[in-house]
Amino acid sequence: MYPARAQLNLLTLPDFPLVCPGDDLAELISTSLQKASLKLENGDVLVIAQKIVSKAENRYAYLNQIIPTAKAEQLALEVEKDPRLVQLILDESKEVVAKRPGVLIVEHKRGFVHANAGIDQSNISSLENDPRVLLLPEDPDKSAEKLCHKLKTGQLSQLSIIINDSAGRAWRNGSIGFAIGTNGFEALENMIGHRDLYDREMVVTEVAVADELAAAASFLMGQANESAPVVLIRGAQMKPSNAGSAMLIRDKHKDLFR
Amino acid sequence: MYPARAQLNLLTLPDFPLVCPGDDLAELISTSLQKASLKLENGDVLVIAQKIVSKAENRYAYLNQIIPTAKAEQLALEVEKDPRLVQLILDESKEVVAKRPGVLIVEHKRGFVHANAGIDQSNISSLENDPRVLLLPEDPDKSAEKLCHKLKTGQLSQLSIIINDSAGRAWRNGSIGFAIGTNGFEALENMIGHRDLYDREMVVTEVAVADELAAAASFLMGQANESAPVVLIRGAQMKPSNAGSAMLIRDKHKDLFR
Repeated sequence: MYPARAQLNLLTLPDFPLVCPGDDLAELISTSLQKASLKLENGDVLVIAQKIVSKAENRYAYLNQIIPTAKAEQLALEVEKDPRLVQLILDESKEVVAKRPGVLIVEHKRGFVHANAGIDQSNISSLENDPRVLLLPEDPDKSAEKLCHKLKTGQLSQLSIIINDSAGRAWRNGSIGFAIGTNGFEALENMIGHRDLYDREMVVTEVAVADELAAAASFLMGQANESAPVVLIRGAQMKPSNAGSAMLIRDKHKDLFR
Repeated sequence: MYPARAQLNLLTLPDFPLVCPGDDLAELISTSLQKASLKLENGDVLVIAQKIVSKAENRYAYLNQIIPTAKAEQLALEVEKDPRLVQLILDESKEVVAKRPGVLIVEHKRGFVHANAGIDQSNISSLENDPRVLLLPEDPDKSAEKLCHKLKTGQLSQLSIIINDSAGRAWRNGSIGFAIGTNGFEALENMIGHRDLYDREMVVTEVAVADELAAAASFLMGQANESAPVVLIRGAQMKPSNAGSAMLIRDKHKDLFR
């Protein structure tokens, strides 16, 4: 059984510094918590913006260093994007899911269906003559696991980590936050066998709780999320698990929209 | 400009009664708030589960009263569902978006792409010989507007209402909450013209904040959401608007996944 959850509190860590390659994110988070007179407690969830994880892991790519293949050149013409960016997108992905001028939606190597493979050109300081972009972390579950391990010090035994990003969706306008990496908790809660109020077995059996919390944190982060890239969530009472976020990805062959 | 949001608090209203057709939801919510020693404040957001809105509006349908057409009978065979339920789904929708045995995804009359047109058979007490199901509210924006109007008493001038439901998504496993009706605030925030930290114009321009808050509330409601069908959110600082939720629906002709 999952617990009844009565209350949820979300808090951005204030004055979080700009993150540079090689920075120790766990240390930056600990310092920021201390400054806010906060101490991690058992059951806490930390939601961390993908962007600062990517920066700490130096996932920058420099467009001037990319030599696009003929395939990337052709696709770039179709979608009206920089061929070097298209090359990077192809390198980061398994396949193109949808495209039209201005839009290139792919299945990322890690399974997310994401415009431009999640490669980001905003909130990145670029010199005009050497434009750089930021790729998703190489393995967001691994990044979450490392952060969780480093932050679990002293008496802290139960901590959950979500690395979130924002993306567009089928059928609906606007982006929302979702989880690209998780650690420490069950990202997809399975209600099979649970009974509703009238003792009928529930029909909707799986809830993407990691995505619901990622969306909630994303609301606080806003789009200019580098100024508030870490959100502390209290009251979530997640079920401990080491499974990571892979279960959130729908198998391509079971997907009616692929 | 949108405000910087530092903190968000979500709270379920405790011991909410079971809702029956004709019940005054605004009154039930007011009573529940009083019992919890809570008073609505300017800027509050109330998220209300679709199910109790539908019940109060008596959106029950009785399968024994439905005579399926030949079209519904044929589709029912394909998707292995009760032909009477399929007839109701067709009556509630504009078109079938995807189908396979066990699954029927349609565009609801109001524009949501939703399995079974959002018709619910769980948490509904049915006599075996007269099975009933629950349809979505006829006009969720209108329902939200009425609730907002009734709840805005005394000094309260700024209240936001979200009616939420849970649904599956393309590409990802598990359901999450989303907004089917809104009132009092801007459901889709437009960041066009906003500058990022490095003074570059932001690329992702629209954020579905109503869906992010609906997902957060849905996390607290859980799937057996009749036991906690109302969530009070504080700290959201929504931008006032009368536009409702239609802007959250992507135009079919602009959708790469239709």
